[in-house]
Amino acid sequence: MTKLELPALDPNTVPEVRRSGYPEPYRSRMGDRAKRRLGDACGLTRFGVNRVTLGPGAESALRHWHTLADEFVYVLEGEVVLVSNDGEQVLSAGTCAGYPAGKRDAHHFVNRSNAPAVYLEIGNRIDGDNAFYPDDDLMWCENEEGTYAAHKDGRRY
Amino acid sequence: MTKLELPALDPNTVPEVRRSGYPEPYRSRMGDRAKRRLGDACGLTRFGVNRVTLGPGAESALRHWHTLADEFVYVLEGEVVLVSNDGEQVLSAGTCAGYPAGKRDAHHFVNRSNAPAVYLEIGNRIDGDNAFYPDDDLMWCENEEGTYAAHKDGRRY
Repeated sequence: MTKLELPALDPNTVPEVRRSGYPEPYRSRMGDRAKRRLGDACGLTRFGVNRVTLGPGAESALRHWHTLADEFVYVLEGEVVLVSNDGEQVLSAGTCAGYPAGKRDAHHFVNRSNAPAVYLEIGNRIDGDNAFYPDDDLMWCENEEGTYAAHKDGRRY
Repeated sequence: MTKLELPALDPNTVPEVRRSGYPEPYRSRMGDRAKRRLGDACGLTRFGVNRVTLGPGAESALRHWHTLADEFVYVLEGEVVLVSNDGEQVLSAGTCAGYPAGKRDAHHFVNRSNAPAVYLEIGNRIDGDNAFYPDDDLMWCENEEGTYAAHKDGRRY
């Protein structure tokens, strides 16, 4: 294939990022999760688009919902389990899910299969957006220096 | 496969839309273009996500750029030609393109192959967003009743 030039992009040329912004013990729970930040690589600022590979056992995120950002996921390869308030559903390649901003239906993907799963995740970038985690002892707080992770009783991680 | 329930969705259950908002002669130029409005079907309002099937000869849109909306496309099946200011590139399944808001690099896809092509298109929904068409005699104007299509000299279509 001829090398693509922006505005086009071959996702395989975008570096994989394995970081997580969560404090421990949550960071480690993400497991074998690698993201390629395709939207950033194209210069987008108003929403993010990541192509994510989840190895067996890995999780997309802690189960969460966003206050101001819509989110959308489209499964490209393999199979993931969507966990949301109403329970679990298996999503295979070619299926999708969408999470409207402000809807208190916390969600995440878990890869319970024996093969990698690949999906696109899209979310608005909106100032003041927050995320809540009903299953876990984590919340985001803000002071003059910025945002920090805290226990739900307010103690810092 | 078990029937998926929201927030998950099987895209094949979402109706195909073949409308175009363009006046003639532009509407017909889109050809065999069918969209499934996945984001809308999930209740999203802050960006749109469509799975689009372009038949041979069909076009994604007139070549255009947006003032306020970021756009992103990810090719799922087949092959399309991306036309932008710098020329043409062939995008096959697994490649993508991103168009930052306000960047005057007009773009569209044309299917010059003999098979259908399928892609995801994502774009912000932002009040006051406008699109411009360097190759065609079309602009959008606004009066008290709403938006209408006009020739570039101001005459209405």
